Formats: sequence, structure tokens, C-alpha cells
Amino acid sequence: MANTDSVSVRIFSLNCWGIHYLSKHCSQRYAMIGDMLCKEEHDIVLLQEVWSEKDYLFLKKKLACSHPHSHYFKSGVIGSGLAIFSKPRIHDTFLYRYSLNGYPYMAHHGDWFGGKAVGMAVFKLGSLIANVYVTHLHAEYCREKDSYLPHRVVQAWELQQFICHTSAGADVVILGGDLNMHPQDLGSRLLRSYTGLRDSYLETAKFDGCENGMTLIANNPFINKRELSPFENGIRIDYILFKGSSKTEIYCDSMSTTKGSVPDHPFPYSDHEALTSELRLEVQRCNSSLLFFISSGKVAKLVDIVTEARTEVKVGLHWAERMRYTAARTGVMGLALLFLELAIAAVPWLALGAEQPFPRTSFYLLAALCFAILLITSLLYIFYTMELKSLQGAEDQMRLPTGSRWAQRN
Amino acid sequence: MANTDSVSVRIFSLNCWGIHYLSKHCSQRYAMIGDMLCKEEHDIVLLQEVWSEKDYLFLKKKLACSHPHSHYFKSGVIGSGLAIFSKPRIHDTFLYRYSLNGYPYMAHHGDWFGGKAVGMAVFKLGSLIANVYVTHLHAEYCREKDSYLPHRVVQAWELQQFICHTSAGADVVILGGDLNMHPQDLGSRLLRSYTGLRDSYLETAKFDGCENGMTLIANNPFINKRELSPFENGIRIDYILFKGSSKTEIYCDSMSTTKGSVPDHPFPYSDHEALTSELRLEVQRCNSSLLFFISSGKVAKLVDIVTEARTEVKVGLHWAERMRYTAARTGVMGLALLFLELAIAAVPWLALGAEQPFPRTSFYLLAALCFAILLITSLLYIFYTMELKSLQGAEDQMRLPTGSRWAQRN
Repeated sequence: MANTDSVSVRIFSLNCWGIHYLSKHCSQRYAMIGDMLCKEEHDIVLLQEVWSEKDYLFLKKKLACSHPHSHYFKSGVIGSGLAIFSKPRIHDTFLYRYSLNGYPYMAHHGDWFGGKAVGMAVFKLGSLIANVYVTHLHAEYCREKDSYLPHRVVQAWELQQFICHTSAGADVVILGGDLNMHPQDLGSRLLRSYTGLRDSYLETAKFDGCENGMTLIANNPFINKRELSPFENGIRIDYILFKGSSKTEIYCDSMSTTKGSVPDHPFPYSDHEALTSELRLEVQRCNSSLLFFISSGKVAKLVDIVTEARTEVKVGLHWAERMRYTAARTGVMGLALLFLELAIAAVPWLALGAEQPFPRTSFYLLAALCFAILLITSLLYIFYTMELKSLQGAEDQMRLPTGSRWAQRN
Repeated sequence: MANTDSVSVRIFSLNCWGIHYLSKHCSQRYAMIGDMLCKEEHDIVLLQEVWSEKDYLFLKKKLACSHPHSHYFKSGVIGSGLAIFSKPRIHDTFLYRYSLNGYPYMAHHGDWFGGKAVGMAVFKLGSLIANVYVTHLHAEYCREKDSYLPHRVVQAWELQQFICHTSAGADVVILGGDLNMHPQDLGSRLLRSYTGLRDSYLETAKFDGCENGMTLIANNPFINKRELSPFENGIRIDYILFKGSSKTEIYCDSMSTTKGSVPDHPFPYSDHEALTSELRLEVQRCNSSLLFFISSGKVAKLVDIVTEARTEVKVGLHWAERMRYTAARTGVMGLALLFLELAIAAVPWLALGAEQPFPRTSFYLLAALCFAILLITSLLYIFYTMELKSLQGAEDQMRLPTGSRWAQRN
């Protein structure tokens, strides 16, 4: 894998769709994935949606020889679903949980319970320090009316912040995962322009895979074609991104994806296609100190993107404010109803010997209803307040002069 | 403030105790703090427990001339309480929320609602990049039986991870805040040994302030002396820590604390004492590449500390597992009670015309009780599962070979 001037690394990324009882043929697919990884011997394997720790441990056992090092990132109620397996040793890991990640009451979407995050692992590849990131952003359930868009934009913002701030000491940065965003979506542009990460699919010298590098395709038997509409053939939402540094130049020699089926197997590895990139890292003899150099044209482009992102976050802010207001108003109505009930009940009790007391059953039923309303609206009020704070926090940070950080060293 | 080879910065840190209606003389104290900051003109001001955004905006207006740059870190339900004011421009900010921070049902302690975090701001001081961090860790309410200790240890662990991973590109690192830990507490040792941060109080050439650098003292009229016991005179839990880099040497020329009262004022700024450190940054002409050099003796010390931390986290893990089990058991009992009730109610309904039906009032009351039990235990189960995941995640990361990250460059 290494000589002093040039290092090659093969990176693999796959969303494993590992929801037991809901995903089809889950255990069989993990066995297939394990066999393939054992055989292919990629240097670094980045997996998403490994929701069950048992499946991680199954793979860990299976890959003990081919990939002796691994890490499973724990977060949220179910877990982050993120796992890394590698041939080189993992020197350090770090996890950043996104501050926004859907709503707990949207249990059928389930994202909130996953505790979505970005996991980082530090490797030494030859003489180079490589920071490798794996992530999985909030899913897009309806492109026309995407109520999670502000959450995904804030996640993309936090992802770029995390990568920018933690990668200063790295010679190489690699990010793999399911971003749930098309290449030209706001979040993708935000991420790529701020971090300077380059897209394997666009940079590769050789490509073998689905048309347009798609990773969610109509040909995959696990895919419901109606859900892909209006993109009949498929979409590209999984990526392997990379960048070098003043010390290292990085090239993508080849890239491939699976194509919806696996030879000699009745079904594919997952509902997503798997990505493999072969990257070549070349140590620069002459260190350039212009790492942070940025043209005024690029700053203008950044300003446009961040303005668009702020608009999206503001849409989310207004929505969260309206929802919090609704929760508060409903709570106050529940409280008023409780007082009204107590007042009505108290009247015959005060006028001793009145003939028609408040019917007991109705009294208790109504009181229980009021308490339930109060409890639920309080919880929703707390949740929306937290959402508001996170959205406001992201918007505040986006307001810092764009391009300022690139000017630091100049 | 600057010449090319040496830069002096004055750093200020104060826990403002800004809980309106609960903290005494809150508004008057903010006015006093504003006046003092305006007059003293520290370069960078790090404030904690600024719980109300109104108070931040009040200070921002008041300090518009002396400290034109500022940032308020939003997080959680109430906010992180963290604010930065500065003379030099803030180039970038980033917030990391700790994964563990007390319990929502311990509302009288309130820490959970604060969304405790560490805030980072990037400055350019002369030709140097300075990463400045401000934080406030979970309070210690009872030293003998500190049920929050695992949470605070995990916070200290995440704080050191955040600082180590985000400061690689910085020439200077400064951390100020209320760590709620004594200098020899496990979390303090963890933080200092992993980050290499040095303590202003121990390093200063000149000191003017409370005995032993204490920051929570019996002489402060806002302090309940009984709560300090067994430390009759006070404790040191607020810090200004710093470190240089291969490019910069850093010295603490002087340090001071307030002493429980303010001349010409009837009460002090806060229940905590304020800290001021004057740091001198010297640019090294000859870059040393031995930044990560660490002796085997130091690795052994680190192993001891991390072993102690893992033990503490495991104590938290057992407790959270027990609590989750209790929540699950109570939930199952609530469900069983509900089924029992339905069965009893169904018997006379099935045997048509039976003489003694289930009393309606009791039926509805019992059903409401069962639903309340189910709802509350479900929420607690979810919460404890998240706590468990965070504790397990920290413990997993602590298991990575100690000292490995220092060996990266060697």
C-alpha cells in the first residue's frame, strides 16, 4: 500500500439498510456484505445504517483477518448506524451529533431515533495523517414538500464546520456516506464549497458503474420505483469525497459502483449501491503555504450559497416558531378547560345539597384528557424550543462574514 | 497589543449567575459587569451562565465601543449560557453540545435544560491564529454522593477531544470557564493531560486574588457557606488554561481574581469570582517538530487517568442500565394492569345482564393511571437508552490505545 512518495488507498462506502424486520433479507445481505469485504480487502470501509450492534459484531468477527481495526459510533436511541472497518490502525475517533435531526413524533420516519452524526477516524497512511469521516444525513421523504430541508441544510452546515475545524492537522481528508442530497442540492454545494472537498465520481480517471454515478436506482429490486419519481432512472445521493493539503496531492484513479444486482446472488447488498474509490496520495516535495488562498470570485459564490442556506434556515425558524406557538396555545386551552371543569364541579359542591352534581365519570375523563394535553404540549414546547435554538445558532454562525476564515492566514 | 514577535492578550472569565428571579440582584449585577468590562478593556471576555439573550444584548450594546465583536452560543432549551466579547475580530465560531448533561426530570437542578456545551471562536492575534474556547460543565450538587460524576467525566472527555481535534491549525489555545471540578479531580486531570493545557494560576509570574486561587469563596455574600462544606474557605473550579504550539511560546505574566466584594458597590459581580489572566505570546523563530513528543512516563500516567475515567463511566453505565430496567419493568406492570382491568371489565359485559358491572369512575381513573405510567416509562426508557449509548460511546473511545494519537507524527 505504501512507498515514501505515493500511497494508494481503496475506500468503500455503503448504506447497508440494516433495519431488521423491515428491510428485506437483512441477515443474508450482511453475510453477503461480509463475504465481499473479506474478498475485496478495501483499505477503509465506511458503512451506514448498521442499526444493530449485533450486525456490527457479526461483521467484526467475519472481517477479523482482512480488517483487524474497526469502530462503531454510538449515539441517539438506536445508534448512529455508522461503522468503520480498516486495514490500517485507527489512531483516534471522534463523534459529532447533529443538533437537528427530525422529530421524535414522526416515529414512522425514524430519523430522530437514529441520532444521526458524523464519525471521524484518524489513520496514518504511509507518512501521511488521514482524517476519514463517515456520515448519514436526514432522509428526504418528499422532494416537492420537503419539511426536513432546514434540518438537512443545518446538518450540512455542521458537517462542513466539523470537517473544516478538525482537519487542520490532516494531510488527507476523506468523507464517505449517504448525504441524502443530489449533487446540486443546496447542502451539497454548501459542503463542497466550504470544505473544498472534491467528488470521486467527477474526478475519477476511470469509472465503472451506474449511469451518471447513481446510487439509488430503479433497477434495484429493493427500490419502490414510485418513490424515485420524477427521477425515473435513479438519483445520486451517496458519495466519496476527498481533498489533499499543502503537503499532499490526491487523485482518484478509478471509481466503481454496484449496478443493482450481484452475480451469483438472488438480490443486491442493499437498496443503495455500494461505492469504491481508488485514491492515490502523492507527497508534495515543496510545501505550498497558499492553502487558504481563495479568489474574490469564489467568495462571491460562497456568499450566494450561504445566503440561500440562511433563507432555508429562516423558513425552518418560522415553521418551528409557529409550531411552538400552536403547542403553547393548545396547552393554555387544556389548562383553561381544567379550570373550567374544576369551577363547574365546585359550584354544586359549594351549594350544598344541590340535586345535579357533576357526573363523576365525565369529570375524571375530562381531567385525564386535560392532563394528557398539558403533558404532551409541554413536551412539544420544550422540543420546539430546542429546535429553535439550534436553527438560530446555525443562522447566527452563517452570518459571520463569508470567506473570513480563509483570510486568516493571509 | 501587537508587535511582530510578542503579543500580549488579557483574558477575562466569569460565571455570571444570570438566572432571573432566582439569582439575587441580577440586572444590577449585569450593569456592574458591563461598566467594569467597558473600563477594563480586556481583549477577550468569556462569560458563562448568561442564560437570557436579553442580558447578552444588553452587554452587547453596552460594550459596543470597547468590544465590538461578540458571539452568543445557542443550544438546548434555555441556551448554553456562553458568550464571548472581544476587541479582535471573531473569524469563525463552532459549538459542540455535550452528549450527556444531567436529567430532564431533575428540573430543580436545571442543567439538562441549559444544553451545556463548549463554544469555540477563532481569532487572529498579531500574526497568530488563536482558538479560544469557553465552557461550563455540569454542576456538582453533592460531593460525597455525586450522581452526576459520570456525566461530568464524559463532558471532560468530550471537551479534551474537541480541543485536541479542532486546535491542530492553531498557534495558541486558550480555554476559560467554569469547569465545576477541583484542580485534582479526575475530569481536570483528564483534560489537562490529554490537551497539554497549562493552568494560569499555577503558571503565573504574579498573582493577586483569593487564597489558593479560589473562585467560589465563603466571603462572597451570595454563597451559602453550608454548601461549601467540607471546604470551609472555598474551592477553585473556574479556570483560564492555555497552551502554545511549535510556532508559539506562551507565558502568563499575571493573574488576578476578584475577592468576594467590589469597591463602591454593595455586592459582588456574581457568586463566582472573576478571573483575569495576562498572557504573553512569543513567536518562535525556530519551528520545532516535536509537538507530539511524549515520554513513556507520561503515557503511563495517561493510562492511569483514562483507566480511572473508564471506571467512573462504567459506574454510570451500570446505573443507567438499572434505571432503564426499572423503567421497562414499571412500564410492563402498567401494561399488565391495563390488560387486567380490561379483562375484569369484559367479564360482566360478556355475561350479559350481570348484576355488578365494573364501577365506571374507577375504570376510567385506573385506565388514565395506566396510560400515564406507560407514557412516562416510555419517555424514561428512551432517555436512559440515549444516556447508555453516550456512555458506551465514550467508553469505547477511551479504550483506544492511550498515547496512540501522540505517536501519529513520530
